[in-house]
Amino acid sequence: MKLKKTVLLGAGLLSVASLISTPALADDAAMLKLIRILEHNGTINADAALALKDAVTVQETAQAEKTQMAIEAATKDNLKITTNGKLAIESPDGDYKFKFNGRIMADQTFVDSDDTNLSSGSELRRARIGFGGTIFKVWDFQLTSDFGGSSHSVKDAYIRYKGFENNKITVGNHHSPFAMELADSSKYMTFIERSIGSELIQGASGPGDRRNGISSFHNGDNWTAQYGVFGTNISKNTGTDDRLTYSARATFAPIHEKTHALHFGGGYAYQDFDRDGLGVRLRTRPGTHIGPRWLDSSVTADGAEFLTLDAAYVNGPFSVQAEYDRAMIDASTGSDVDVDSYFVQADWFLTGESRNYKASSGHFSSVRPKGEVGKGGIGAWQIGARFASADMNDGTHIGGELDVLTLGLNWYATKNIRFMANYNTVLDVKDGNVPDGDEPSSFVLRSQVYW
Amino acid sequence: MKLKKTVLLGAGLLSVASLISTPALADDAAMLKLIRILEHNGTINADAALALKDAVTVQETAQAEKTQMAIEAATKDNLKITTNGKLAIESPDGDYKFKFNGRIMADQTFVDSDDTNLSSGSELRRARIGFGGTIFKVWDFQLTSDFGGSSHSVKDAYIRYKGFENNKITVGNHHSPFAMELADSSKYMTFIERSIGSELIQGASGPGDRRNGISSFHNGDNWTAQYGVFGTNISKNTGTDDRLTYSARATFAPIHEKTHALHFGGGYAYQDFDRDGLGVRLRTRPGTHIGPRWLDSSVTADGAEFLTLDAAYVNGPFSVQAEYDRAMIDASTGSDVDVDSYFVQADWFLTGESRNYKASSGHFSSVRPKGEVGKGGIGAWQIGARFASADMNDGTHIGGELDVLTLGLNWYATKNIRFMANYNTVLDVKDGNVPDGDEPSSFVLRSQVYW
Amino acid sequence: MKLKKTVLLGAGLLSVASLISTPALADDAAMLKLIRILEHNGTINADAALALKDAVTVQETAQAEKTQMAIEAATKDNLKITTNGKLAIESPDGDYKFKFNGRIMADQTFVDSDDTNLSSGSELRRARIGFGGTIFKVWDFQLTSDFGGSSHSVKDAYIRYKGFENNKITVGNHHSPFAMELADSSKYMTFIERSIGSELIQGASGPGDRRNGISSFHNGDNWTAQYGVFGTNISKNTGTDDRLTYSARATFAPIHEKTHALHFGGGYAYQDFDRDGLGVRLRTRPGTHIGPRWLDSSVTADGAEFLTLDAAYVNGPFSVQAEYDRAMIDASTGSDVDVDSYFVQADWFLTGESRNYKASSGHFSSVRPKGEVGKGGIGAWQIGARFASADMNDGTHIGGELDVLTLGLNWYATKNIRFMANYNTVLDVKDGNVPDGDEPSSFVLRSQVYW
Repeated sequence: MKLKKTVLLGAGLLSVASLISTPALADDAAMLKLIRILEHNGTINADAALALKDAVTVQETAQAEKTQMAIEAATKDNLKITTNGKLAIESPDGDYKFKFNGRIMADQTFVDSDDTNLSSGSELRRARIGFGGTIFKVWDFQLTSDFGGSSHSVKDAYIRYKGFENNKITVGNHHSPFAMELADSSKYMTFIERSIGSELIQGASGPGDRRNGISSFHNGDNWTAQYGVFGTNISKNTGTDDRLTYSARATFAPIHEKTHALHFGGGYAYQDFDRDGLGVRLRTRPGTHIGPRWLDSSVTADGAEFLTLDAAYVNGPFSVQAEYDRAMIDASTGSDVDVDSYFVQADWFLTGESRNYKASSGHFSSVRPKGEVGKGGIGAWQIGARFASADMNDGTHIGGELDVLTLGLNWYATKNIRFMANYNTVLDVKDGNVPDGDEPSSFVLRSQVYW
Repeated sequence: MKLKKTVLLGAGLLSVASLISTPALADDAAMLKLIRILEHNGTINADAALALKDAVTVQETAQAEKTQMAIEAATKDNLKITTNGKLAIESPDGDYKFKFNGRIMADQTFVDSDDTNLSSGSELRRARIGFGGTIFKVWDFQLTSDFGGSSHSVKDAYIRYKGFENNKITVGNHHSPFAMELADSSKYMTFIERSIGSELIQGASGPGDRRNGISSFHNGDNWTAQYGVFGTNISKNTGTDDRLTYSARATFAPIHEKTHALHFGGGYAYQDFDRDGLGVRLRTRPGTHIGPRWLDSSVTADGAEFLTLDAAYVNGPFSVQAEYDRAMIDASTGSDVDVDSYFVQADWFLTGESRNYKASSGHFSSVRPKGEVGKGGIGAWQIGARFASADMNDGTHIGGELDVLTLGLNWYATKNIRFMANYNTVLDVKDGNVPDGDEPSSFVLRSQVYW
Repeated sequence: MKLKKTVLLGAGLLSVASLISTPALADDAAMLKLIRILEHNGTINADAALALKDAVTVQETAQAEKTQMAIEAATKDNLKITTNGKLAIESPDGDYKFKFNGRIMADQTFVDSDDTNLSSGSELRRARIGFGGTIFKVWDFQLTSDFGGSSHSVKDAYIRYKGFENNKITVGNHHSPFAMELADSSKYMTFIERSIGSELIQGASGPGDRRNGISSFHNGDNWTAQYGVFGTNISKNTGTDDRLTYSARATFAPIHEKTHALHFGGGYAYQDFDRDGLGVRLRTRPGTHIGPRWLDSSVTADGAEFLTLDAAYVNGPFSVQAEYDRAMIDASTGSDVDVDSYFVQADWFLTGESRNYKASSGHFSSVRPKGEVGKGGIGAWQIGARFASADMNDGTHIGGELDVLTLGLNWYATKNIRFMANYNTVLDVKDGNVPDGDEPSSFVLRSQVYW
């Protein structure tokens, strides 16, 4: 059940004309009755009576139109507000539109207290307030601040021009086009954390995540292509770093029906360091977000290339998704260093919903439960499993290896509110910051709302 | 004078029917006049005339109803906005409601410049922006960020379900139920700072203030009961700490009239440390917020219990309030350490307003001056005095003792705007971070607005 | 073209009366026709017919008024929303008004990578979210947070009373009255950064920028005068510092037409340090914002005086502006230290717009392009040049000297969106933190939106 509510103040006007001009009921009774009486007693003749009756009909229609015009005049400047779990306010002429958004993700992590390589604790994983808008229908802007995590950061801070057909040009801090899991919103992820491979390439040195720069996005019904050039991530809010990142990404969906979709995507990025001493640092935690990073590898380099491939298939309540990421680091001394990672995941909505793939954007989007809690339903229930692996050992470079299995249970109480439980277990670890073979488990709970 | 303005776009519709169907004035004159003439000159008989007059009445009513329906159709989708010093926007069906709130408290502290144990200076004590909402009338959410103090922090970050009768279940970062003064909003406090006893138990180690967790709140007309289990405070935004806090609180109000109330409350909290090395750190400043803490006591412990009792009485413009707090720390070595603190305060509205006690929530709420500045009034004027005492010495544990007297003058210019002046004087200090007997005074000014 | 759109829900009502009471068309046809027939066939006499026709007119007017009243009743409580690139929501009675505002400035700086005294890099220079309001038409409040720069800070956090004629009294964190360039909004600056002289006096030690305090502003059509007393800047958010700053500023505009203006202004500030060890620290970067400060001079002092003079002239698309700033530091030991700085700038709108000087506030304000992108235009194009110089050497005090030339090109795509390019070149440097004669250049790009 889709509950899209477009609140068009004065929208009812469309139906007003028909309402007012319905066939006359009682309100013409007095005049018609008088005409019949006068005709009957011979005061007026049949022709006059007919003319008078016609005049009554004309009069009625005219009166209805006049009332309608008066109402229209009184409401024509009403502003438009849209709420569908989001809040948007628009000027009557559509020239200015403002949007408010945000999200809360509050996590609680439990590990065996004897295990000092992982940490129990509370975390406000994400707490975002965002404000955006559209000017003259062709200019978008968005500013989103995150108050969660270990320190404040800015996420989106961009201006976008969408005045050309099937094209969007974006400048400012925004997602550099590269990998799928990194660019899909955290609001819609099946698991509490992204895979360890995504975390590896998300950092300041990698091509993924948001960066200050310019990009161009092109799309059709079932494909997308985008490319851009970027400086550093200004989430934390300034970087005196002269490395530029060139990145590109494309997606294609041979199947793109409402609950049946097949997606393929790939990305490539390139960094050429024109100054000595710059490096590529890739690092990750073992599935949970608080606590120390188990893999942390830095390579002083002259440049780096990055490659990613991803695929996803949705068939009704069932979906699978996989991604492969590779960093090829042009080390300043010694051999080049290659870092590989990948994940495969499968999930299933017990209550019959589908993951919501948008072929024209190449992203997964929000899921509305068939029955929402508060509207008589029990929400949507989803289970999933993911295996993720990273290998940062290459030749003489020892960056470590890590395999993590994650099992998840999600309860979407409403479209906007979700509670998540994840069980993570380290299947294998080698050459990291912890003893080889340390294979603890963690249990994480998340309460999430977005608007 | 209560100025509650519920702006129901289209609310006027309720009165439209009566307005339109008022007895006919001139507008039926033409037809009625014609009927009378025709009856008088014998063109129609008396029965016909009567029937025609009835028809006029029916016609009038029908026309009025039709106009009303047209107006209703044109405005039925109008959204509702409420402003009463706050801003809330609601979708027409009530499914989505969004609220904006915030506060500014800008302080200036003056001390004798020869006294180096206190500090003069400027402080943005609180600067909060909050965004909340209600979904399907049963789900609340709230995210509030504070940009004041010495660093940014998140306050409320929770999801609440209120679909069960007389019950609210809250998950995320929110006030753990324990003491009264800590949980009452800083917007409504009589004095600029909470008492030194509240500051002692507010820290990360104590049970009070906000924490990430889950709690259940139950209430009746004049009682409340709540309990919960909590991790750490994620205001600063992550804590790798596996201590859990179990806390509970209840209130009862034998008298709960509009300007006459008697309140009793109590709370209990329990922490069991299942890992060695955790501690309980309690500390406080001497009445002002900037400058060093005069008492600062840490105890490595196996756990701790906390107890609080509070009472308040309001009779017209006069009120008194008192609270006792006790921490019982199960020290890892040596004897247990007990910390005691309490305060008593009295205040009086010179202009006749009453402190606004809500028996169904167990909290004090906002006060609207009888005459607001900008609406022809002079605002509300209030004076108060508070004595607060803390004793952290227990047996061989020397944590220090401190007594502070605070005198206050408040000017509520409007419900939302208040200016405060406090004079704090240390009556006694012993075994703290300053020489025994150091008894300086401070003068603090606050400008406050909330929305 | 000024596109001011005041969306008064129900505003159309003003024209409704005239609309409804237009001369009767067809809707009175039936009755008038009947009257004519009855008069013609002798059923009624001429007097009766005339009286009946009059009754028809009266009836029509009454009906129109009744419909209008019904519509007014249905829409009278509609709230007012104003959008003109900004968003404001007002309660129907005007008692409460809320405003949302913000800005994004995302910068990219390029320098020759061999030059290690300047830095390339990305920076979110400003990212602000603000919320303000007006209560009872006489109380303003504003809270603005900045998430850009190297760390979070609060900008405006004040309460303002404007109930007295031609006067505004402000308390909280706000601009202390002193210099022109510092107080003019960064949204409207011709160049990406303020001049090096403004940066010198902007710091915590100088009189400029925002501070916690109280000030009074008076004005007429073409003059302003303001004065105040201030503690420290609480942007970062607390300062234990007992220095007070007394500052004042006045402006006068002999010419103040729409596109033709001549402005003169001046300011004076005074700091008396009643505690030993306080200092005055003045420092600046060489034109770009990221990277190290080239001049950085601290003087331990007993007090300081500050003086500024400024002038501006606008004539159509052309404008010039100049400012002189002087700090006179009463050094605790040795001779007094005087610091001088000044800038002169000229700019020209290639597309014919004018810089928007407001004589009653003494500030430059927003410029709306003659043709905006998205509305069929090409935006406004502006070029400018500025020479800025600072001399912190005085007698035996060696603080350094710096001269910077800036060339700028601005493209205002719309009133709210602007893209800027600046070329900065150091013309001279002496006795700073870099070798004498180091004269590198930088190129900076900015993407800016405000709302």
